[in-house]
Amino acid sequence: MYTLYFSPNACSLASHIALAESGLPYQLRRLQFAENEQRSPEYLKHNPNGRVPALVTDRGTLIESPAILAFIAQAAPEAKLAPLEDPFAFARMQGFNSFIASTVHVAYAHRRRGYRWAERQESLDDMAARMPQNMRDSFAIIENDLFAGPWVLGEDYSVADAYLFTMSDWLGGAGVDINDFPKVADHYRRMRQRPAVQRALETEKEAAAA
Amino acid sequence: MYTLYFSPNACSLASHIALAESGLPYQLRRLQFAENEQRSPEYLKHNPNGRVPALVTDRGTLIESPAILAFIAQAAPEAKLAPLEDPFAFARMQGFNSFIASTVHVAYAHRRRGYRWAERQESLDDMAARMPQNMRDSFAIIENDLFAGPWVLGEDYSVADAYLFTMSDWLGGAGVDINDFPKVADHYRRMRQRPAVQRALETEKEAAAA
Repeated sequence: MYTLYFSPNACSLASHIALAESGLPYQLRRLQFAENEQRSPEYLKHNPNGRVPALVTDRGTLIESPAILAFIAQAAPEAKLAPLEDPFAFARMQGFNSFIASTVHVAYAHRRRGYRWAERQESLDDMAARMPQNMRDSFAIIENDLFAGPWVLGEDYSVADAYLFTMSDWLGGAGVDINDFPKVADHYRRMRQRPAVQRALETEKEAAAA
Repeated sequence: MYTLYFSPNACSLASHIALAESGLPYQLRRLQFAENEQRSPEYLKHNPNGRVPALVTDRGTLIESPAILAFIAQAAPEAKLAPLEDPFAFARMQGFNSFIASTVHVAYAHRRRGYRWAERQESLDDMAARMPQNMRDSFAIIENDLFAGPWVLGEDYSVADAYLFTMSDWLGGAGVDINDFPKVADHYRRMRQRPAVQRALETEKEAAAA
């Protein structure tokens, strides 16, 4: 049994979708960001960085979306969630996921979490104002260069699709029109039709309302 | 033959060290950051994000340090640069490397590359002033929680050690005393004694002077 620590509509959605696709047994533990539960001593034992996701396994806890996503794919090889037998293709997937984590998610975080990197309110406002352009620049790279189609890696679905979907889902709130990126927009619509994605979204919606 | 695009003392040093440890055949191509060569059309074909490192293989180009590091380990299994047969341990390594990429390196980038996320000079100054504290916070997490010792993952050396070393090497320039983190400081000294690390450092020093 795996336990995923998540917050509704945070980047943990990608790992949640991957678990829903995997067939692995799992349970969810919601962190209340409004109560700063991700900084609680109990949670910091799992993830000293105080972020979601964290995946608790019987051998210990894993952190960081790219690592958790690849682990889920490796733990459920029959679900075919990654090109496990091809190191080059696997590295392409990891490169995409690392770009999401280090560039796209970081760009987005400068809207509301600019206090991680600066002190003055004017600086935070400056960062927040710049965020939509950085998201557009990131998604242009995805649309034009990184996205093979019909899935991120090409013909085969992978955990990278769950991660891209999670970022695409943030675009509207970032003030960016997903339809400016036709391949990404089509991918987003097809993702929403997958039963595992629908289950994960429904579960997170219920958790957010609870 | 692999080709690594690098810039002296940039984060590409980690991939450079991993190649030097691996026994794989490789050549280096230096990008002149002073001439903005990482934004040149030729390089953007390799890495549309305009960053180092990029690793050119006979099947295409790989981007992002965590992906390249894991690929080098998989391409040279006899060099034992990662726990390739243990998905949990591999995910621990990837989680560490993703933390470096998404948190530590991002924290450091706010000193001189704050223009990625804000416009006003006052904001960039604010970010630069905050950077040393963020590096200290990140290294406290490494020292107290993520570093197993004597190597990052425990008894076995891995590419995560090359990545940690690269970040540790930046601490002095960031105004942070590495000796505030005794395990990290000891790791740094032992890394500098490895022949592959010495070769990589020497090569980058010569490239920087050329």
